[in-house]
Amino acid sequence: MQGTERDVPGLSKHRIEALSDGIFAIAMTLAVLNIDIGELPGWTSPETLFDALLVVSPQFLHYAIAFLTLAAFWVGHTQQYHYIHHVDRTFIWWSVLMLLAIGMIPFTTALVGDYTSSPVAVILFAGNMFAIGVFSTLGWRHASTENRLIEKGVDPAWLIRSYHRGLIIPVVSLAVIGAAFVIPDYATALYLVLPFIHTAVGRHSRPAAP
Amino acid sequence: MQGTERDVPGLSKHRIEALSDGIFAIAMTLAVLNIDIGELPGWTSPETLFDALLVVSPQFLHYAIAFLTLAAFWVGHTQQYHYIHHVDRTFIWWSVLMLLAIGMIPFTTALVGDYTSSPVAVILFAGNMFAIGVFSTLGWRHASTENRLIEKGVDPAWLIRSYHRGLIIPVVSLAVIGAAFVIPDYATALYLVLPFIHTAVGRHSRPAAP
Amino acid sequence: MQGTERDVPGLSKHRIEALSDGIFAIAMTLAVLNIDIGELPGWTSPETLFDALLVVSPQFLHYAIAFLTLAAFWVGHTQQYHYIHHVDRTFIWWSVLMLLAIGMIPFTTALVGDYTSSPVAVILFAGNMFAIGVFSTLGWRHASTENRLIEKGVDPAWLIRSYHRGLIIPVVSLAVIGAAFVIPDYATALYLVLPFIHTAVGRHSRPAAP
Amino acid sequence: MQGTERDVPGLSKHRIEALSDGIFAIAMTLAVLNIDIGELPGWTSPETLFDALLVVSPQFLHYAIAFLTLAAFWVGHTQQYHYIHHVDRTFIWWSVLMLLAIGMIPFTTALVGDYTSSPVAVILFAGNMFAIGVFSTLGWRHASTENRLIEKGVDPAWLIRSYHRGLIIPVVSLAVIGAAFVIPDYATALYLVLPFIHTAVGRHSRPAAP
Repeated sequence: MQGTERDVPGLSKHRIEALSDGIFAIAMTLAVLNIDIGELPGWTSPETLFDALLVVSPQFLHYAIAFLTLAAFWVGHTQQYHYIHHVDRTFIWWSVLMLLAIGMIPFTTALVGDYTSSPVAVILFAGNMFAIGVFSTLGWRHASTENRLIEKGVDPAWLIRSYHRGLIIPVVSLAVIGAAFVIPDYATALYLVLPFIHTAVGRHSRPAAP
Repeated sequence: MQGTERDVPGLSKHRIEALSDGIFAIAMTLAVLNIDIGELPGWTSPETLFDALLVVSPQFLHYAIAFLTLAAFWVGHTQQYHYIHHVDRTFIWWSVLMLLAIGMIPFTTALVGDYTSSPVAVILFAGNMFAIGVFSTLGWRHASTENRLIEKGVDPAWLIRSYHRGLIIPVVSLAVIGAAFVIPDYATALYLVLPFIHTAVGRHSRPAAP
Repeated sequence: MQGTERDVPGLSKHRIEALSDGIFAIAMTLAVLNIDIGELPGWTSPETLFDALLVVSPQFLHYAIAFLTLAAFWVGHTQQYHYIHHVDRTFIWWSVLMLLAIGMIPFTTALVGDYTSSPVAVILFAGNMFAIGVFSTLGWRHASTENRLIEKGVDPAWLIRSYHRGLIIPVVSLAVIGAAFVIPDYATALYLVLPFIHTAVGRHSRPAAP
Repeated sequence: MQGTERDVPGLSKHRIEALSDGIFAIAMTLAVLNIDIGELPGWTSPETLFDALLVVSPQFLHYAIAFLTLAAFWVGHTQQYHYIHHVDRTFIWWSVLMLLAIGMIPFTTALVGDYTSSPVAVILFAGNMFAIGVFSTLGWRHASTENRLIEKGVDPAWLIRSYHRGLIIPVVSLAVIGAAFVIPDYATALYLVLPFIHTAVGRHSRPAAP
């Protein structure tokens, strides 16, 4: 580990991975806490309870969208950290900003689940996802430029594809924001295409065999 | 670690274990947050408080059922990952779907604790457990078929028994769903037989000595 | 790692440590979520806010008591696991029962903070701490008897002292339960003597030099 | 690892790192749970929702301040632990007190977000940050005095600078407390200068090359 001007002594990548895994796990799980069917009478009939659950079904959908999108970010995060061999101050603070945005997901998820047809809520949710993606990309750019923090032997073609992958969620988020002005009720459904895009791109994003 | 077509470069099993342990820990603990005895007057008599606690006793019971059933899933998860030596994209997404279902447990646990006598609530709770088991089994099948992601030397007889073990909770969950239509109030009590089944099966599920 | 009849293949102590650290961290932190000063008007005067905070001061006190007592359990847990070199099914389930009791602490802490002068609340809180200590001791007894799961070279005198240490919190909890019938308002204050007991005992609880 | 009089057998620094990362992650994320725009009608107009979000904007600001300040503490924590090679009882309990104070951040953050113009709320928030910094510094002083728990080869000049760094947040917190009496509404904004101070100091805080 050769030192550079802005190295943080003693900050191993293992600790950032642990903090990040913790914040990812909490953000993915907390959103469900905000799903609330309200107070029904104790002798609630099956129909009443079923109706109450239907009312909160948009919240379930957005819980699932948030969970799966964060999982996609997490997979990308894991891949980046595999190639990083040390960290510096700039990289840490891009990571912290990304984690700050991740920590807001339970709030924006609950908001869009409650106010599905509100462009404001949709824009905040998609803007939150956009911010995570941008901070992640800026950190990765800092780390990979001139192999500043990553291994020397990383395949340059894979590196370029990793940038492209990192832009998928921000680009879809911009599309959702655009759609929010036209069809707010269905805008967030655009996130459901992510698995297909990721699968398609994933087939082509392995580093060349050494 | 030899690569296959769908390998995810840089995704070590250690990171998925860390994310999974975090989500398991949160899901097991959050359910207790939903237990609420309401607002009693400050000068509450012992009898009043005791009565209020009796009212929420089904919530304690379902907290315990959810905690112990998730613990059983966690033990199975740990055993699977012991034999896995690398991961691919398909396996990760089965794992993510399993974690998504685990993240819903605090909601379905609170629901069945509040509406113990409602078939809808019981079915959602048992269906949630069923989903965890099915996603877990599908991931493990993908990993173990033709030793795709696991060590070569795994005892085939143990592997078959591991499938059987993985089906215990889904099968019990189906029984609970069936019982929900007949005796909703007592259906979830079926989960209390799990420790006995697991103990009985556990005695026979060690790999053969090498 | 030589196998015994009840070994769980693939369950390393590292995973249980990770799950336990997660549940300890959540239980220690969640109790603060239940402190709520209610809704005050936006232009609240300093006196009004100060008074509202005084009202919830018993909740702060019990948050601190719960945090420090769980920390004492955690230190003991860490010491036990240092000497454990493998785990079996019985040990895992004693650990899971201990974690189940730990997961209830946010509820019982909020209860005793809200109803400080209620014997029922005090008994539930102290009973919860008692249960954690008993499950922990039963697991440790299983692990250490005839060096079943621990290293051969452990100093027997230290082992005996580790049992005594493990009984400190259960014994103090029984004293709190007794005091709850006489002076419920001050019973939980007995936990404040724990640091002094632990410090006194700690000076004598190192293993003999090899 | 040579033993000292107050060593805790079996307590490795790895376990404290894991518990601390967990509590940091939870405290950083939970504060967002308290942001609540209340109940708006389902057909809320964009203007109404936007207005409701403006009302809670001080809570977002304080969530961000708390997150970033905790992140700064976490970076310092990570650097300290890099040089620590074993732990003793005194160090553990300074760490536990620091974690206890960290666990209170979600409460004090929600308080200052709700009552921005209240000196009492501002003082509690800044006092909480002050307490974290003081406990952290006392633990680090214990660890580093006469190289009690840290590596022998640590650059003494770096050690002195690490003390100075550790005092930045406590000193800024004292300034916030002072400002709370004069301009409570803007006092916490002083925390926004932290990144600039840390960046300036960070440039000079590397250990000398060996």
